[in-house]
Amino acid sequence: MIYVVAKNSVKVDKIEDYIKLAKKLVEATNKFDEGCVEYELLQDINNTQIFTMIEQWESKEALDAHLSATHVQEILPLLRDLRDGAGDVNIYQKVE
Amino acid sequence: MIYVVAKNSVKVDKIEDYIKLAKKLVEATNKFDEGCVEYELLQDINNTQIFTMIEQWESKEALDAHLSATHVQEILPLLRDLRDGAGDVNIYQKVE
Repeated sequence: MIYVVAKNSVKVDKIEDYIKLAKKLVEATNKFDEGCVEYELLQDINNTQIFTMIEQWESKEALDAHLSATHVQEILPLLRDLRDGAGDVNIYQKVE
Repeated sequence: MIYVVAKNSVKVDKIEDYIKLAKKLVEATNKFDEGCVEYELLQDINNTQIFTMIEQWESKEALDAHLSATHVQEILPLLRDLRDGAGDVNIYQKVE
């Protein structure tokens, strides 16, 4: 199992646009991408500009397929344009 | 539902100690803390010094009770001593 945590700070006047687009990404991922166990959009309760996507994938191959899927290739650059600074992405394994 | 993502970089010669201690915390939390839905220790697949705890709690009250529990009060300062720099903790809600 592979986990991804992607944290982004969003421009304060672009929060609604970001949520709308990110929800599209969540929907398309849940609908189309095989091997997706969890894919959730979270918003910081103390700072509404901070968003984190928590993802769980059955394998690295499933994650790679997701990253090259059309909906990701289309939506991810648009989300990046709404960010306030660089994002922070890590890929994890569970410590057993 | 409340989510916590706590990311830490651990001193390179303290990784084993960190894993041992953090596992104790995971075990005690799963055993004792009510309202804990998920509490997982993750390690970055590209940088073994980076650890993230992903937590899911039924409520803010459950999270607060966890944070004041004896096992957390005992183990958390020990984990902090093994860190390489400051940690990064955020509390989230799911975007519905």
